[in-house]
Amino acid sequence: MKVLVQKFGGTSVANLECMKKVLGKVRQGLEKGYKVVAVLSARAGDTNKLLGLAQEWSATPDPAECDALVATGEQISVALFSMLLKDAGIKARSLLGWQIPVRTDNAFGSARIHEIDADVLKKHLENYDVLVVAGFQGVTEDNRITTLGRGGSDTSAVALAAVLDSCECEIYTDVNGVYTTDPNICSTARKIDKISYEEMLEMASMGAKVLHIRSVEFAKKYKVPVHVRSTFTDDPGTLVTQEDSTMEALLVSGIAFDKDQARVTLHGLPDVPGIAAAIFGPLSEAGILVDMIVQNTSQDGHTDITFTISRKELKKTLELMAEVSKKTGATEVAHDINVAKISAIGVGMRNHSGVAARAFSALNREGINILMISTSEIKITILIEEKYLELAVRILHDTFGLDWDIN
Amino acid sequence: MKVLVQKFGGTSVANLECMKKVLGKVRQGLEKGYKVVAVLSARAGDTNKLLGLAQEWSATPDPAECDALVATGEQISVALFSMLLKDAGIKARSLLGWQIPVRTDNAFGSARIHEIDADVLKKHLENYDVLVVAGFQGVTEDNRITTLGRGGSDTSAVALAAVLDSCECEIYTDVNGVYTTDPNICSTARKIDKISYEEMLEMASMGAKVLHIRSVEFAKKYKVPVHVRSTFTDDPGTLVTQEDSTMEALLVSGIAFDKDQARVTLHGLPDVPGIAAAIFGPLSEAGILVDMIVQNTSQDGHTDITFTISRKELKKTLELMAEVSKKTGATEVAHDINVAKISAIGVGMRNHSGVAARAFSALNREGINILMISTSEIKITILIEEKYLELAVRILHDTFGLDWDIN
Repeated sequence: MKVLVQKFGGTSVANLECMKKVLGKVRQGLEKGYKVVAVLSARAGDTNKLLGLAQEWSATPDPAECDALVATGEQISVALFSMLLKDAGIKARSLLGWQIPVRTDNAFGSARIHEIDADVLKKHLENYDVLVVAGFQGVTEDNRITTLGRGGSDTSAVALAAVLDSCECEIYTDVNGVYTTDPNICSTARKIDKISYEEMLEMASMGAKVLHIRSVEFAKKYKVPVHVRSTFTDDPGTLVTQEDSTMEALLVSGIAFDKDQARVTLHGLPDVPGIAAAIFGPLSEAGILVDMIVQNTSQDGHTDITFTISRKELKKTLELMAEVSKKTGATEVAHDINVAKISAIGVGMRNHSGVAARAFSALNREGINILMISTSEIKITILIEEKYLELAVRILHDTFGLDWDIN
Repeated sequence: MKVLVQKFGGTSVANLECMKKVLGKVRQGLEKGYKVVAVLSARAGDTNKLLGLAQEWSATPDPAECDALVATGEQISVALFSMLLKDAGIKARSLLGWQIPVRTDNAFGSARIHEIDADVLKKHLENYDVLVVAGFQGVTEDNRITTLGRGGSDTSAVALAAVLDSCECEIYTDVNGVYTTDPNICSTARKIDKISYEEMLEMASMGAKVLHIRSVEFAKKYKVPVHVRSTFTDDPGTLVTQEDSTMEALLVSGIAFDKDQARVTLHGLPDVPGIAAAIFGPLSEAGILVDMIVQNTSQDGHTDITFTISRKELKKTLELMAEVSKKTGATEVAHDINVAKISAIGVGMRNHSGVAARAFSALNREGINILMISTSEIKITILIEEKYLELAVRILHDTFGLDWDIN
């Protein structure tokens, strides 16, 4: 039995007309001889409406009840789409998270999948040609409904493909695939035909919204090839898969960026052991994620520490740092929200030196000041002034030859 | 452990303001020392919206998918109400049909409850002070969501009270209780303090909308006292319970009526064995419910048969009777839709002769012609011309002294 998992996002199932296009995609899968597992999100807007209701009812809605509430969004879309399939003469049925079941932990609102009963799915696949599965939702060990967090339907789809030993998982969305960078900023941005899990993880963590980051982690872990493509065209999209030799030919695969950055600096800190813990301990306890960190070389037994956080955490961070400042004797706490982060990502980077140097000199030539730098095996990240972001994206896109198709 | 089941209909949970009133009713139950099982309907209008969606998606929506769709209405109201309870510091959680589970047969759209796991409920009642249960929904043996048909939340509530050995089941609605007749037609209509299951069944089957007929059957079978009362006042409502001596003091408890009647007559039928079967067999096969039936005394070996049906079945019925007419040799098929049915209902009727006679002579005095009559142990039903209906209701209400409170 050949099984194809197809996931359709909120804009793909927004209304009857869209769902008819989705029906066409499912039919293509059937015509190729697959049994299809169609994973659906809630209709565009429904999840926000439900969350709005929760906020109206309670300033701090109970997380378990909120998940039971929000899960109705996918329940509605799978029931409606199954009606459509049955009317088209296709043997189909809907399956909710608890009906499979998709077992998760108890982290309501951002639950993680522990186990999926593949035997139940396989048995249903003997009786039906299409299973319409509610994405984004699962059920705890004691049968309470959970949701997997924003974009969780991608994760549902990849997890189902993983347990079904499916040859491929198609993620249908309203764009053609993954791009070298945001086409709204850089007109020469190209669709990427193939990208490694590692690169996709870096792209997703930088805010490329096309795939949910946890779904990429899942795909990488279980080696599920993920094909990102458009519901509204028949064009091939982007294949997210294991690294191969064709990928290494490319030094940089994409340029990602993130405007949601704020920079905080503590000046004049005593350069003693435990100073980093004194700063980042309270942030961690408060659940504030710190992104880039730079510590200056010590001068006269004193040092500066600079880090970046999400802008919405700035107020809380400054409160915490005021206390830290008193305890540690820092001379000043400075901050800046007019900053942005830009990254060049590529598995090819591993085997080439000088990628960072090329990036820096290209930005330098245009007079763009580099505020912070951090590098990983397959990524270089640079913090710059926000006003230069679009220019910097175009410069790096050009510098690394992403506007030509070299495959 | 004292348990009180409270059911709140769609208008009682329509919005946040209404739900706050419901919270007050639940709190009253808790203050009396009860653990509360609150059974909720969908918010007013939600079920119709969902059915509207189903109709938009499919001319004949798959019944199983339709139930999965419609069940989201109650899922939303129980999740929202549970949030409210938790914010009020009350230990509460929502329970969906499948989470209990409420096991039903496979009759999607009008499923019947087979079994409710009382042990699960009792265990939850040890941990929570209020269980917020989604009414109207259940789950089949193979875990597909079912709904119990319109008004099914009443049935859910009574069934839960039955398995919990609860002392009482309160049905909260937007009226004060059960009335002797429709106050819109008869200004002297009074709220009934106490009514027997049998009388309530007759009232409900005649279209008194305050209680779903199947819930009354359930209450009667399991001897669950049902207290019908208003969410919006603190007045005592109507207690539906086993017949007792105070009830027998009342000859007639209420006057019910139904305008949805059409009369069909087959004239000149040969008076031979099997003639009734020839008429009612095809109607039964077509799923058409026949209400009153009268057969005239035979003259010259010929007879007339008259029966009533719901008006929306008239077209189909006349088609069937045209065929029957050919086969049986009836001389004419006549029909009339300007008719209405009126009933006097009361357990006290059993021990008194002459109730029918009193009703007939009262109507006669006002020149109201009696078209058909049928009687049961606790009910007299009369078919009259529709234009006299309101007058007839007031005459019978007066004749049987329902405008005075004789208790």
